[in-house]
Amino acid sequence: MTAGLSEQALRAAAEAAAHSALAEDLAGLGDLAGRAFPAPGTARVEARADGVLSGVAAFTAAARLVDPELRVALACAAGERFAAGDNLVSLDGRLSSILALERTGLNFLARLSGVATLTARYVAETSGTGATIAGTRKTTPGLRALEKQAIADGGGSPHRFGLFDGAMIKDNHVAAAGSLGAAVTAVRAGLTHAHLLEAEVDTLEQLDEALAAGVTVILLDNMDVATVGAAVTRVAGRAVLEVSGGVTLESVRAYAETGVQVISVGALTTAAPWTDLSMVVVA
Amino acid sequence: MTAGLSEQALRAAAEAAAHSALAEDLAGLGDLAGRAFPAPGTARVEARADGVLSGVAAFTAAARLVDPELRVALACAAGERFAAGDNLVSLDGRLSSILALERTGLNFLARLSGVATLTARYVAETSGTGATIAGTRKTTPGLRALEKQAIADGGGSPHRFGLFDGAMIKDNHVAAAGSLGAAVTAVRAGLTHAHLLEAEVDTLEQLDEALAAGVTVILLDNMDVATVGAAVTRVAGRAVLEVSGGVTLESVRAYAETGVQVISVGALTTAAPWTDLSMVVVA
Amino acid sequence: MTAGLSEQALRAAAEAAAHSALAEDLAGLGDLAGRAFPAPGTARVEARADGVLSGVAAFTAAARLVDPELRVALACAAGERFAAGDNLVSLDGRLSSILALERTGLNFLARLSGVATLTARYVAETSGTGATIAGTRKTTPGLRALEKQAIADGGGSPHRFGLFDGAMIKDNHVAAAGSLGAAVTAVRAGLTHAHLLEAEVDTLEQLDEALAAGVTVILLDNMDVATVGAAVTRVAGRAVLEVSGGVTLESVRAYAETGVQVISVGALTTAAPWTDLSMVVVA
Amino acid sequence: MTAGLSEQALRAAAEAAAHSALAEDLAGLGDLAGRAFPAPGTARVEARADGVLSGVAAFTAAARLVDPELRVALACAAGERFAAGDNLVSLDGRLSSILALERTGLNFLARLSGVATLTARYVAETSGTGATIAGTRKTTPGLRALEKQAIADGGGSPHRFGLFDGAMIKDNHVAAAGSLGAAVTAVRAGLTHAHLLEAEVDTLEQLDEALAAGVTVILLDNMDVATVGAAVTRVAGRAVLEVSGGVTLESVRAYAETGVQVISVGALTTAAPWTDLSMVVVA
Amino acid sequence: MTAGLSEQALRAAAEAAAHSALAEDLAGLGDLAGRAFPAPGTARVEARADGVLSGVAAFTAAARLVDPELRVALACAAGERFAAGDNLVSLDGRLSSILALERTGLNFLARLSGVATLTARYVAETSGTGATIAGTRKTTPGLRALEKQAIADGGGSPHRFGLFDGAMIKDNHVAAAGSLGAAVTAVRAGLTHAHLLEAEVDTLEQLDEALAAGVTVILLDNMDVATVGAAVTRVAGRAVLEVSGGVTLESVRAYAETGVQVISVGALTTAAPWTDLSMVVVA
Amino acid sequence: MTAGLSEQALRAAAEAAAHSALAEDLAGLGDLAGRAFPAPGTARVEARADGVLSGVAAFTAAARLVDPELRVALACAAGERFAAGDNLVSLDGRLSSILALERTGLNFLARLSGVATLTARYVAETSGTGATIAGTRKTTPGLRALEKQAIADGGGSPHRFGLFDGAMIKDNHVAAAGSLGAAVTAVRAGLTHAHLLEAEVDTLEQLDEALAAGVTVILLDNMDVATVGAAVTRVAGRAVLEVSGGVTLESVRAYAETGVQVISVGALTTAAPWTDLSMVVVA
Repeated sequence: MTAGLSEQALRAAAEAAAHSALAEDLAGLGDLAGRAFPAPGTARVEARADGVLSGVAAFTAAARLVDPELRVALACAAGERFAAGDNLVSLDGRLSSILALERTGLNFLARLSGVATLTARYVAETSGTGATIAGTRKTTPGLRALEKQAIADGGGSPHRFGLFDGAMIKDNHVAAAGSLGAAVTAVRAGLTHAHLLEAEVDTLEQLDEALAAGVTVILLDNMDVATVGAAVTRVAGRAVLEVSGGVTLESVRAYAETGVQVISVGALTTAAPWTDLSMVVVA
Repeated sequence: MTAGLSEQALRAAAEAAAHSALAEDLAGLGDLAGRAFPAPGTARVEARADGVLSGVAAFTAAARLVDPELRVALACAAGERFAAGDNLVSLDGRLSSILALERTGLNFLARLSGVATLTARYVAETSGTGATIAGTRKTTPGLRALEKQAIADGGGSPHRFGLFDGAMIKDNHVAAAGSLGAAVTAVRAGLTHAHLLEAEVDTLEQLDEALAAGVTVILLDNMDVATVGAAVTRVAGRAVLEVSGGVTLESVRAYAETGVQVISVGALTTAAPWTDLSMVVVA
Repeated sequence: MTAGLSEQALRAAAEAAAHSALAEDLAGLGDLAGRAFPAPGTARVEARADGVLSGVAAFTAAARLVDPELRVALACAAGERFAAGDNLVSLDGRLSSILALERTGLNFLARLSGVATLTARYVAETSGTGATIAGTRKTTPGLRALEKQAIADGGGSPHRFGLFDGAMIKDNHVAAAGSLGAAVTAVRAGLTHAHLLEAEVDTLEQLDEALAAGVTVILLDNMDVATVGAAVTRVAGRAVLEVSGGVTLESVRAYAETGVQVISVGALTTAAPWTDLSMVVVA
Repeated sequence: MTAGLSEQALRAAAEAAAHSALAEDLAGLGDLAGRAFPAPGTARVEARADGVLSGVAAFTAAARLVDPELRVALACAAGERFAAGDNLVSLDGRLSSILALERTGLNFLARLSGVATLTARYVAETSGTGATIAGTRKTTPGLRALEKQAIADGGGSPHRFGLFDGAMIKDNHVAAAGSLGAAVTAVRAGLTHAHLLEAEVDTLEQLDEALAAGVTVILLDNMDVATVGAAVTRVAGRAVLEVSGGVTLESVRAYAETGVQVISVGALTTAAPWTDLSMVVVA
Repeated sequence: MTAGLSEQALRAAAEAAAHSALAEDLAGLGDLAGRAFPAPGTARVEARADGVLSGVAAFTAAARLVDPELRVALACAAGERFAAGDNLVSLDGRLSSILALERTGLNFLARLSGVATLTARYVAETSGTGATIAGTRKTTPGLRALEKQAIADGGGSPHRFGLFDGAMIKDNHVAAAGSLGAAVTAVRAGLTHAHLLEAEVDTLEQLDEALAAGVTVILLDNMDVATVGAAVTRVAGRAVLEVSGGVTLESVRAYAETGVQVISVGALTTAAPWTDLSMVVVA
Repeated sequence: MTAGLSEQALRAAAEAAAHSALAEDLAGLGDLAGRAFPAPGTARVEARADGVLSGVAAFTAAARLVDPELRVALACAAGERFAAGDNLVSLDGRLSSILALERTGLNFLARLSGVATLTARYVAETSGTGATIAGTRKTTPGLRALEKQAIADGGGSPHRFGLFDGAMIKDNHVAAAGSLGAAVTAVRAGLTHAHLLEAEVDTLEQLDEALAAGVTVILLDNMDVATVGAAVTRVAGRAVLEVSGGVTLESVRAYAETGVQVISVGALTTAAPWTDLSMVVVA
């Protein structure tokens, strides 16, 4: 299983995101309602649906920013499954702090657990096939690091992070260069020996062009299962194959069974509904 | 129709979001692939599905940050409907700049048009009823301003922005205070005369308690249509009524026809799939 | 009594302000004089005049930034009265840290206690009348949050924080719209149901116009006491009335006795002299 | 006449302050009232009292941030005198932009012109004496650069900026060192040859101690006019003398006529009331 | 030739670095000397030694920040050779602006041209051999992007940027894992298919271990030329070989002639003296 | 011995630099290799060459940012000499944290110890002469504070920090003013009494001009030893003399023996090679 972010990168991203998100909720005079309740109390984050937990680092960072004295106890770890009704987190401290944290903290957990949960469904569908489910760069602006981690929490691979940690040649590069081969030549000339080049192909003819250009990671874009199968056969291990485009929960297993190594799914971040969670003051 | 953000607030939010989002994609050595294509060229953002446009301010800000010489021509304005196949934006400049902008720019338009488009569907469903469709604070962390604007672009109301521009008493405040009336008293004591107080009620009994406490904006939480209708009758204009919780595209019209003034829908931001858009280099 | 900022908002504002203020004093090589005294020692902040304390959160935040090991013991809390000669704060730690903190820490306490002290005088003058003394947006650029808190520490109301947490129609809006009624209509169209609208009126005729437009919070601008009294009679409880403009310590009680609910006083932040405080190394 | 900030430092400070101040007024949904008036219009900043103008750089920076298309024409320059009724600035552009700028822009001009105006009164009182009126580090936290410039605009000297651009030995350093001489020795040991040392003395005995220690800039703290005169005689040109502490508009000329070179006045920034200015939409 | 940063990444890095560097020079009251010369004038940046130019983007960004009206004309482009006595840049505008820019602007050009110039010497020494000269992560803290670009300007390869855009297994990872093979297995398990793995080996035995583990980019650490030659023979094209450690201008050609593809040289950034440049006011 | 930065200024600079430097190494997914080793372990920073330690504050700040639980034990303090083979720092904690810190931490120590070590060599060469070795503003952009501290750690004087904490008249100011005397007059007019003025002279004639203008700190620029000796004689204690330009380790003693008080050496920061250090995982 590929990893998400390294611990330091996750902590930095979580703290920055928590800071920004709290600023959205606590401008001006701050919490106009919650401040009326400075007494100590207890609350729980409860699941109202099944899912896979993510967003814990941001939730914890937000809690610390709201009130360094607030005690946060996790009953479920990032990447773990939970069921509707489960208690996920316990909070103990000033009720005013709990109330100020409520919406921001839940937004992190609900959004990111939604991504992790959908990822886990794709991973489960392809169980035993050897194919990896990967994310794309179609992430919510400003939240890429945490969404990449959510994909990892769901058992998927974050894929490259941005334009800078791997070179991907896509249709627009081919259009700019005139041909796939010309695009590969142009891009490769600028790469260091430490960077990998991946090329997207639309047809089996382009696949041959990519192989001839020495490309070792190839994305098969918007191909049906039969064509992907043909591509696997034709490549015969000379390149890592990645499928992308139009893969659904219904079709993903068929794609996986063709023998491709990676299936990247934009829907993990563009179509994942939030997981239903709530915070309940219990005392 | 309620407005979204004022022009200054929207510009500031768009620039900050564009800056953050580009930093996600252009760390390290930057765009490893696109930099190989410095020649001038042209591209279009095309719709692959019907929708309502949003995210234009952030797209434009990102384009300016990527390359101040890139020319951006909008063929569709924020809040306008478009159909699959429509050209939404034309870009003219260095292809390397267009390629560096592509994913970040599309992420803004696709995410935010998704919110606007879903909002517009709820608005259309309630057409002629006098009810306003409103958003909630269940927004993607870090993107609240742009998502509130997207709701306005879709014809909805952004509702309050955060904990600071309106006081809302919800179940956890009631739990903290012991009763709705006690919560109203406690919160109201801290408010200035320039801030409005809204209270959420779960039952008609609580509704009476809210009215007795002089609350003039009341949120009916998770009530069925019949109960909402009874609440409207009972209130008889003494308060603005807002419905929230479990409202779907199927049920929204029935709620609207009860005579409530506002229906707030978390799904506008928690369950809106991205609108399918693509950028195509055309020359 | 209305509240100031919520605890989270106050902490965030105090930390940001402390960071900015210390940077003003400690650029370049830092404290050229104080660094010569690294030995441990003790100091006190002493009052040289009577007053009401404010600025404690910023003082404490600055102390922590200067030296996390510096011990700060408060002998007086925010909002409390003190007399000339009183010890307000005790400091224990490296003298170099105490000397680096001295001016920045005192600037916060002296400026903000000045605001709280003047506010408390206005509040005392109106004691028993039921009128609330409120601040305005005439605050020192960059220090609004802490000055709003200082007003609350002095027993006043912070009023709305900015242009975003309440809509106020003033003379320039009326000029832009053509009439008060037109301005109300235009502004109200853009408001959500969770935002309050307040309108400023210059004459009793405009007051009638505001009432006719359904405005429920009305600011009486620059009216003499007799006219305010007439306004109170005419309104007869249909709106909250706020007086503003030219109110002084001499005239404020007469205004308060008319029965208006709120008297907003720009002088709280535009004409409050600093409270005289000093820091004394005692060992 | 000493100068204020260099042009680059002033621009940077003005932009940073404008950014912070606007953020205070335009959080959340932004300007809830002004956004209703997008039509073009004209406004003027008018003086309602006599004064000396300051804050122009911050006003201009704020205008540019609110709306880059807003046209700002200055009818009065920084450092110039104006009379009640004078037009100081003309604005031309969207009324919504003018309204969003109004309070923030005025706060800069009114606060900083207040400082410049009070400074100019002290300067006028000492006219012809050869004494320079200087500011202190008792500045509003976060606004030091602009207040130092305001003092220069009023004809005064900003004095050193912070703890880093000159070493000043005061009573607490003496307390920490045991004696003035010991403090001078300790501090001087850490200074480079490019930094000046100034020492504060409370008595003529300490003055002798400072001279014996080779101090060439000496602050006479809280001395009456006669003692200052004696100090001038005793020093006989061996050091620059600065008077500070308790100097008022009434007493400043007497101090200046003793022959001291510098009179530093905390009141320039701690007791300057805002200058009364207003913005008027004229079309 | 490998490329440096993409244009967007370079612009962003240059602007951030220029902002930080100017803040170091222009704190407090700003330029105490240069502000006395506001008259227009002209200046040139002149080379006092031969070299290869770098730092142009940061110089230009700093000039724009100091004074947007300053005109900058480049007589030499990034990556170009120049000789002692050459004019590199012409400046036209306020002398005060030119003087405020002088040191910061020269620091960028001199430091970064120093790196480019040393790189170019290594590149020249290996001319015709097919070996690429590459940098390392031994860069000045805070200046990595611009130093990586300087290496590219000198004709070298920037290598990976940080820990995130390529995985490198070094001695400490081997120590942590117990063996090279174990380290490769552990690290590879966390990588996505889009990230390359490189391993450092100290001996030919470790080289075999790396090849057996399927590593395709191998760094030969601190080997003498003969051992490197043996490694090239043994690998026979199965992996890209990189030499690092103790390579000097004297020895680099011998290493290059062994047939290794990459020679990475820490000295490019740890031992490059600044290029001697000066700014001369000419009118 | 002159001091470096005050403790507060050093801590702030170290934290900011550590934050920036780590961001360079840990963007995107963070540490792709080190994250595979979360087990606890121990490492040492070892010297591979003799030197003087600097950079400790930044190293420590970086360690805290990487992992607050990492234990750092210094075996050598800032400003202390060490020999090749010495253990300088011990680290104890997660190996993944140690590996993430390795390069950034070493870059600080190696760069800054390089500056301190070269400074110490110049200081040693001038031992017993009474001359102080000082740095210049030729510092790495963004790293000035830490390099000034490194000079102090090496026994030198940081000199002024920037354009703001002392006025220096150099050749370009003279060119702008027409003559040295005119430049002194123009610059002095803008200075406060708390700022020192230093002037650079190229010839003995200019030296006389500077003395006549009352300048008390004079920089002798690019003069040979004999001319400097003549200058010392001519000045006869009326001014502090500083030598700068072309001073080398070979010539520095001869300059120092002329009796000048200060010798400023750009090479301390422009030509100091990094000290060879490494981090070794030991368990």
